[in-house]
Amino acid sequence: MAPPRSPLAPEDFPAIPAIAGVRLAAVAAELRYRGRPDLALIELAQGSAVAGLLTRSAMPGHPVLWCRRILPHGKARALIVNAGCANVLAGPAGDAAVRTEAEAVAAMLGSEAEEVYVASTGVIGEPLPVAKIVAALPQLREGLRADGWRAAAEAIRTTDTFAKGSFATATIAGTEVGIAGIAKGSGMIQPDMATMLAFVFTDAALPAEVLRPMLADANERSFHAITVDSDSSTSDTLLLFATGQATHPAPRSWQDPLLADFRAALERVLRDLAQQVVRDGEGASKLITVAVGGAESDRSARRIALSIANSPLVKTAIAGEDANWGRVVMAVGKSGEPVEPAHLAISFGGHPVAREGARVPDLDEGPIAAHLKEREILIEVGVGSGPGRAVIWTCDLTHGYIAINADYRS
Amino acid sequence: MAPPRSPLAPEDFPAIPAIAGVRLAAVAAELRYRGRPDLALIELAQGSAVAGLLTRSAMPGHPVLWCRRILPHGKARALIVNAGCANVLAGPAGDAAVRTEAEAVAAMLGSEAEEVYVASTGVIGEPLPVAKIVAALPQLREGLRADGWRAAAEAIRTTDTFAKGSFATATIAGTEVGIAGIAKGSGMIQPDMATMLAFVFTDAALPAEVLRPMLADANERSFHAITVDSDSSTSDTLLLFATGQATHPAPRSWQDPLLADFRAALERVLRDLAQQVVRDGEGASKLITVAVGGAESDRSARRIALSIANSPLVKTAIAGEDANWGRVVMAVGKSGEPVEPAHLAISFGGHPVAREGARVPDLDEGPIAAHLKEREILIEVGVGSGPGRAVIWTCDLTHGYIAINADYRS
Repeated sequence: MAPPRSPLAPEDFPAIPAIAGVRLAAVAAELRYRGRPDLALIELAQGSAVAGLLTRSAMPGHPVLWCRRILPHGKARALIVNAGCANVLAGPAGDAAVRTEAEAVAAMLGSEAEEVYVASTGVIGEPLPVAKIVAALPQLREGLRADGWRAAAEAIRTTDTFAKGSFATATIAGTEVGIAGIAKGSGMIQPDMATMLAFVFTDAALPAEVLRPMLADANERSFHAITVDSDSSTSDTLLLFATGQATHPAPRSWQDPLLADFRAALERVLRDLAQQVVRDGEGASKLITVAVGGAESDRSARRIALSIANSPLVKTAIAGEDANWGRVVMAVGKSGEPVEPAHLAISFGGHPVAREGARVPDLDEGPIAAHLKEREILIEVGVGSGPGRAVIWTCDLTHGYIAINADYRS
Repeated sequence: MAPPRSPLAPEDFPAIPAIAGVRLAAVAAELRYRGRPDLALIELAQGSAVAGLLTRSAMPGHPVLWCRRILPHGKARALIVNAGCANVLAGPAGDAAVRTEAEAVAAMLGSEAEEVYVASTGVIGEPLPVAKIVAALPQLREGLRADGWRAAAEAIRTTDTFAKGSFATATIAGTEVGIAGIAKGSGMIQPDMATMLAFVFTDAALPAEVLRPMLADANERSFHAITVDSDSSTSDTLLLFATGQATHPAPRSWQDPLLADFRAALERVLRDLAQQVVRDGEGASKLITVAVGGAESDRSARRIALSIANSPLVKTAIAGEDANWGRVVMAVGKSGEPVEPAHLAISFGGHPVAREGARVPDLDEGPIAAHLKEREILIEVGVGSGPGRAVIWTCDLTHGYIAINADYRS
């Protein structure tokens, strides 16, 4: 009954080598799904640092509240993640369940509860079967291994049609370090801080004060630049762990040139994971890049790009392989941002359809129609003569989205 | 090939009697559609007053720009409306086409061009075939009649599956006056001022200064309170014409008690038309009322209600007859408005599912499941202890929406 693998999925899960100080395990705890892993434990070496970004939802899940409370310490020994139940709006029992999880993991690993990160994804409003999680911990500990990336990525899926992972290496003052990440997300995806669940690990020796601004910066051009359906999760969590197992000079700040290569590699991993989330957008048949230029500011360009990327009429037009640029005009107009109609320019796949506020004369629709039949669609919009630019990635809106979401909980 | 009549449509077009000073006609000008009326002319008695609300889109259509320019005069002799081409982003030719239309109608009726209102709806970015419109004017004049309401309402449709009309009477100081309205709208519907095209006519003798605030006020609880797909049109136009043919004392202001009955009747007509637009929401199978209370302010309640009403996940859940209240929680959370999670309450059709921030204990899903099988769904949400309240009407998101919009322009 699971939906078929997204046609936009990568060929296969990437080869992710061991990251010194990280071990992973997954089990089938039968929290909601039957016969598939739904619980992952990730153990981190003593002395690991952590930074995180959490949903800005006014109804955050109980695990989000827990992470928000412990993140200022900047220390991590473990991460436990389940799929099937989001542990949101469960009342005082929801907070108690998170604390029980964290304390049980801490007791098992000999750490403080405040060093145990917790994330949950799935149905909102149901009580978390925490006893099943605690009962599964010994088996998880038995299963911890350095090459458990794919198993962990598989276990945290809900409606995802493929497991999401990414890996890059970077050099810090001659020392090679690894950056590995896993993520989940498919529906309820809108960029507001981090989107859904993503966990990134490195063996670099970087303190939380360096990790925090670096993560926030790279997030702007990755998870913060995607949208599937404009619906923001109550559970959005992005965590970056650094085990400190590599040996290299300490940077003076996150902007230290020493970290230039690392910052670039981190951004590549985050963007790769974010785009994989869009590629697994519920029902997606096309990956759409919306690039807006000429706006008053980057912030304004971002809002216009999101207005286009979230428009049901634009998304259904792309699903129908229709270069309906009038709907792009509509979405620019409704953004509420200042634009110059007389200078509006729109192109699909590099082929202009409108220029200087009107349709291109004697438009040849052939190359545009050909572009729209491809899997990856580019919509470029110039809205004036300002310096503001932004790029947003999204997917089309198809019957698949309706099919998946009109029958998810029942 | 036309989609079937919406299952939420009223039984039939209402009986609308003559409004003294109003005559209507429609013809098939073959602007885009074949073999159906697509052009309507409405003639107003000399001395008619007008007030209007227009889209706030940053990319307004050329007819909207024209109406915005002439509305301050407050006088009207005619309204000409076409379907099939929205005359948006057509460059200088777009403005010229509107002026040509207005001048041709004015010459025919012996009025000023600035007394001729113009509206267009349909595809964005195509040139308006204005010569066909001018050529059809003599036939339209021949066809003008006091009982042409249905013909005019039929002619202004695009993807609408039924013609929309409404009628009410009101008494002003013992004199009975009529209020008749027609509207069109089905997709690209989001409340931002007026939504799509709606034209309302009365024989009351009310100057533009009285009509303007009265229309803006009634709009807040009618067209401004609906959403189909969160996409705002470039052409949204709501015009209220008063022919002044009735004889009654002049009110001192729009809030004069003399007008209490008229104001209430106007609001009924506007709300009826607005709800008919939602009932014809593309692919709609359910009419959804979202009522939010306990917010910090009415404005905040409105934003939360819109966040729920525009959420694709909430709308697909209703389509699937699934009381997925977790998605309502998500939509409240993503609204960005201040809420009190510990006091959140949600009910469907009057049956509570969550109370005081958690699921109702021993929830009996039977009555809720029964309610969700109905055509009209009520979602009530309490978000705290504030005084703010708002009601928004919307529809569900179904395969029908995808089918209609993935193949509209091609």
